[in-house]
Amino acid sequence: MSNDAFVPHPDRLLPADPAVREIARSLYALEKDQPIISPHGHVDPRLLLDDEPWTDPTSLFITPDHYVNRLMHARGVDLADLGVGQGPLTESASRRAWSLLAEHWHAYAGTPSRYWMEHEFHEVFGLETVLSPRTAEAMYDEIAEKLTRPEFRPRALFEQFGIQVMATTDDPVDDLSPHDALAADASFAGRVIPTFRPDKYLEPAREDFGALVAALGEAAGVDTSSYDGHLEAMRIRRQYFRDHGAVSSDHAHIDPGTERLALEDARRLYGAALSGAISADEAVALRRHLLADQARLAAEDGLVMTIHPAVLRNHDTATFERFGPDVGFDIPVAVDFVHHIRPMLNDVGHHPGFRTVLFTIDETVFSREIAPLAGVYPSVYAGAPWWFIDSPDAILRYRRAVSETIGYSRTSGFIDDTRAFCSIPARHDMARRLDATHLAGLVAEHRMRLEDATELVSTLPTQQPREVFRLGDGGETA
Amino acid sequence: MSNDAFVPHPDRLLPADPAVREIARSLYALEKDQPIISPHGHVDPRLLLDDEPWTDPTSLFITPDHYVNRLMHARGVDLADLGVGQGPLTESASRRAWSLLAEHWHAYAGTPSRYWMEHEFHEVFGLETVLSPRTAEAMYDEIAEKLTRPEFRPRALFEQFGIQVMATTDDPVDDLSPHDALAADASFAGRVIPTFRPDKYLEPAREDFGALVAALGEAAGVDTSSYDGHLEAMRIRRQYFRDHGAVSSDHAHIDPGTERLALEDARRLYGAALSGAISADEAVALRRHLLADQARLAAEDGLVMTIHPAVLRNHDTATFERFGPDVGFDIPVAVDFVHHIRPMLNDVGHHPGFRTVLFTIDETVFSREIAPLAGVYPSVYAGAPWWFIDSPDAILRYRRAVSETIGYSRTSGFIDDTRAFCSIPARHDMARRLDATHLAGLVAEHRMRLEDATELVSTLPTQQPREVFRLGDGGETA
Amino acid sequence: MSNDAFVPHPDRLLPADPAVREIARSLYALEKDQPIISPHGHVDPRLLLDDEPWTDPTSLFITPDHYVNRLMHARGVDLADLGVGQGPLTESASRRAWSLLAEHWHAYAGTPSRYWMEHEFHEVFGLETVLSPRTAEAMYDEIAEKLTRPEFRPRALFEQFGIQVMATTDDPVDDLSPHDALAADASFAGRVIPTFRPDKYLEPAREDFGALVAALGEAAGVDTSSYDGHLEAMRIRRQYFRDHGAVSSDHAHIDPGTERLALEDARRLYGAALSGAISADEAVALRRHLLADQARLAAEDGLVMTIHPAVLRNHDTATFERFGPDVGFDIPVAVDFVHHIRPMLNDVGHHPGFRTVLFTIDETVFSREIAPLAGVYPSVYAGAPWWFIDSPDAILRYRRAVSETIGYSRTSGFIDDTRAFCSIPARHDMARRLDATHLAGLVAEHRMRLEDATELVSTLPTQQPREVFRLGDGGETA
Repeated sequence: MSNDAFVPHPDRLLPADPAVREIARSLYALEKDQPIISPHGHVDPRLLLDDEPWTDPTSLFITPDHYVNRLMHARGVDLADLGVGQGPLTESASRRAWSLLAEHWHAYAGTPSRYWMEHEFHEVFGLETVLSPRTAEAMYDEIAEKLTRPEFRPRALFEQFGIQVMATTDDPVDDLSPHDALAADASFAGRVIPTFRPDKYLEPAREDFGALVAALGEAAGVDTSSYDGHLEAMRIRRQYFRDHGAVSSDHAHIDPGTERLALEDARRLYGAALSGAISADEAVALRRHLLADQARLAAEDGLVMTIHPAVLRNHDTATFERFGPDVGFDIPVAVDFVHHIRPMLNDVGHHPGFRTVLFTIDETVFSREIAPLAGVYPSVYAGAPWWFIDSPDAILRYRRAVSETIGYSRTSGFIDDTRAFCSIPARHDMARRLDATHLAGLVAEHRMRLEDATELVSTLPTQQPREVFRLGDGGETA
Repeated sequence: MSNDAFVPHPDRLLPADPAVREIARSLYALEKDQPIISPHGHVDPRLLLDDEPWTDPTSLFITPDHYVNRLMHARGVDLADLGVGQGPLTESASRRAWSLLAEHWHAYAGTPSRYWMEHEFHEVFGLETVLSPRTAEAMYDEIAEKLTRPEFRPRALFEQFGIQVMATTDDPVDDLSPHDALAADASFAGRVIPTFRPDKYLEPAREDFGALVAALGEAAGVDTSSYDGHLEAMRIRRQYFRDHGAVSSDHAHIDPGTERLALEDARRLYGAALSGAISADEAVALRRHLLADQARLAAEDGLVMTIHPAVLRNHDTATFERFGPDVGFDIPVAVDFVHHIRPMLNDVGHHPGFRTVLFTIDETVFSREIAPLAGVYPSVYAGAPWWFIDSPDAILRYRRAVSETIGYSRTSGFIDDTRAFCSIPARHDMARRLDATHLAGLVAEHRMRLEDATELVSTLPTQQPREVFRLGDGGETA
Repeated sequence: MSNDAFVPHPDRLLPADPAVREIARSLYALEKDQPIISPHGHVDPRLLLDDEPWTDPTSLFITPDHYVNRLMHARGVDLADLGVGQGPLTESASRRAWSLLAEHWHAYAGTPSRYWMEHEFHEVFGLETVLSPRTAEAMYDEIAEKLTRPEFRPRALFEQFGIQVMATTDDPVDDLSPHDALAADASFAGRVIPTFRPDKYLEPAREDFGALVAALGEAAGVDTSSYDGHLEAMRIRRQYFRDHGAVSSDHAHIDPGTERLALEDARRLYGAALSGAISADEAVALRRHLLADQARLAAEDGLVMTIHPAVLRNHDTATFERFGPDVGFDIPVAVDFVHHIRPMLNDVGHHPGFRTVLFTIDETVFSREIAPLAGVYPSVYAGAPWWFIDSPDAILRYRRAVSETIGYSRTSGFIDDTRAFCSIPARHDMARRLDATHLAGLVAEHRMRLEDATELVSTLPTQQPREVFRLGDGGETA
């Protein structure tokens, strides 16, 4: 049926006005084929090391994607029926989950999840129909068949996607052997680098804090039963990551507090945390001190700190107990960067080794806090709209909120932060289209010369994140 | 004079770009004649029961409308001169108030109040001039004359407006006899249903709390001198409302806190409240517990909870003392839904009987909190922009803020929340035009297929609120 | 080279859509030549009294402009290299700073700083090239040469700019002799008026609070060693300013708190402040009481209070110690007007002498707090987007956020708040263009009649601020 035919429009996300669209097209043309830099994300390095084919469309597109699952859950679908927490799916379970998605697909109209997936269906898998109960089975079959082909294995797609650098997110105690093996594999030319993510080792309120820092100590070969040992273990593990290719550390606490304690208080509270005798307020104070320590270590070792705080994790306790974390129940809250990161910036904000990229879902801070900070501190960059606001209107709001204070040069470039490997090119392409749209508007309103917009788009997608994340100028090595 | 001629443009609120406007027109055409569902508002049921003609244009358009009065007050007009707190107006007082409005009408340019009233002047009363000191008298005369005709009585207009369901707002102790009489009146086919509004019975800090809960107890036939009696009385009165057609309860405290107390603390604080020995903090804690109780009762009886908190009522004490509440001095404040409603959602958020619709004037929570919550909890819906932000740009901001996370299916549909009966069709029509405008933009930018937008508008105005508010599929009964 | 040629486009900032642009052009044409009212700014009155030529382009355009310097600083330039804190510059230092600006000019694309400066380069200095390393020297030379001409002296430019009234910002102890001399100078027809800025005298937490209030007492001829003396000294100095032409007082604390203390507490805390025995919390409480006193005095003397709180000054301590205040490290924070100014409005909000203009960088309060307050209190006006948000997109966001609640009549008119004298016409022109753009959109979407928009623009630039700031109807005197 002609009603089922669908391919994403070549001008999607560009402005509707014909004259402005023409400008946007010319800008986007300069961006679309630039290599992808993904300086922060959650793809497992083993995906590329093992290069195994995906088993089925559901485990590729649905089960691991909390963006997709959460809306179906709100509409009454049990997460278990989407494969969450189920282990490997039988084919019939996989097909059932796929048909659930098809049944609810109309409710995703206008969402980035649908936008990205339709991009992937067409650009990656060559499909030319819209997902619906009518088309679901045929689309499943076609994707499933293609997943068996060599050119749809992870490494082949990595290359086809034009990914130049992709950072993973890794535990400080990880030995990074998959990264090493991948780097040593002459048959794979991609650059896949680890990221130091120490969050849980900085949260003294956690019940497992003692066990965590013991493991940290073991990995570092340092006794972490004292605060000084914790600091030294962190220094060692960060350096280990640095030596294995990392360029950044990633931080996501409920607030971005960085107030330092007096040394004796830090030592005392650390001891109290290990003996289980720390109060809730003290645990917060110690966590902020430990994050401030990360900033000092960053000034030493040069890892760029990405800080994206203010998400209340696991809002629904019952769901957490049944399915664990990262299943769609993390809800953003308001954030104050100005007071919280002031101690850190007063400490190391002018240090040549220190650099931080701030991002958040609380849009109120874009014009009020992030742009003013990134527009004066040499070490501060405005990160990208993230998570719920990695979406077309929100990205335009972000550009309109920050670029009048800091232009484009103090922004980090696009950060996909995704677990969904196949969505990486779709997400970067969306950001590029929207930058073209934003700039075309400025040009059309005579607020920016076309020459300046052209210069910007020629460097934004690839060169900008390479510089911000200290990835070097070349293709493969820093 | 040709200068005085004015009728609202048929394309008002549709996009200026000719191609996008064409799409919007086609979408709006599918919406404009759908029946009106008004699931939350403040029209008195006696208006329809008695079906008396309005006495004059001022008491219809000005005196009860705090949107209209407040701006004149800011511009120096005494509220008394607009009939506020004056009882029935003499004709000369009514005409004086009308001429004040005409004198200040230019200052309303661009406001929704003017937009709605111009819609009403033309679409309801057939006027074809713009209000001004030059035209005021003639327009007054023409409206006054029409108000004497049978076809301008409330029931006739109810039918002419295409209102299918209209909810009123009612005190828990109300016997709902007007609703019963109206339902029993075979000559009136409309569905006018009550809404359970228990706010003041949940505020232990009120001086009249004791008297209030005593009256509640009397209405329920339960001794409310204890906390357990309060809970039981609420259960009984909610069921009474349910039995008399109610589908929702309505809640508007200064914050949406729902943290539960231990049972013995709830009992103790309730006793303290009745004996006047409750502290301010304790009163807040008890109020939050009592709101959490409403949620439990809602899970039992299925009344949908509309929660629209965070308005500081009666900001100006002198005005409150002179004129009482609801005269324009209620000012919004910031709100945090994420922490405040978490206890409630952890308690009953997955219960099949429980459902809540969140709305607010604090726009910062749209993308940060409301959309993420409504996009994962099956019981949470995003309400409509409300009060000061029931206005064209704000409605578009709302759609752009929430629809990228939840599409349209997790939104409540339009809620007019008005005291101004004649403005109901104008307000619903405005919301429909803006949905068409929003969707047309997505279609024109190739972010949504025209087929999907068409499907959405065919169900948004009527079917969506019927489903969210459990109004049943049919026309007249649930 | 043709590549270097550049003059600002006559249609800049007007909408891209041809039909809407045509409407905007017609509205802007009515605004562009209206006289400038600058009711709040930071130009030194001696600039006009002495009427000395500027020495060089850098000290005119760069050194004093923290907007310009801060972005270069973020990009790695030392503030000292831009002349900050350096005293008079040598010609080579001035040229070096200028070439730094040229080198970084591309990073300002899309910012209001670049927009304003390009306006000034062309409209004031007649330049027709874009700044770049290629053009920097020639542009420097041409500006430097013109600065030596009589028609580029401050008074000549004041007249050429069409400035009708310009307010400066002045210390309460200032004798205002420059203002007197300027007013007495028959050769200068401009109206340059002082503004009472008492902030530091209201901050009991300052180390120099004792010295400050002693100086205040000396200026007023009153013993300020007691609270009562402080109040009386303020009354006297405000009246002194009033007598010397002031129409407003200006206030910028970290919060806009106005809660009053009991008289005995105010007296006690004032004494404690002078003896250095006041706690941090008490100092805040006293500061709020002292601001509330200013409101009472304003009700007496009629000075309009501009309140623009919530900027954390001198965020970076090291920079403050090296360069002092006002060098770009002031960062906005969130603000709550509703609770904070309630005591003040309950006290004097209906007093005919009292008037306040609220502005802020926290955009979240525009629709939530400022518009609702200005739309009901006769004494409250919504100020202009300010500082970081005195920029095109933010100005449009402001208009879209407030005008649906209060139209244009409860807004203050544009406030430039600038230290950069030559940017005054550029800033006012930008605001006028954007008002035309905003209104043209409303007209094109049939939300406002062209007649109403025309009436608005005919009064907005000049008459509106004259009325709000009680500047009288005529040209030169109140």
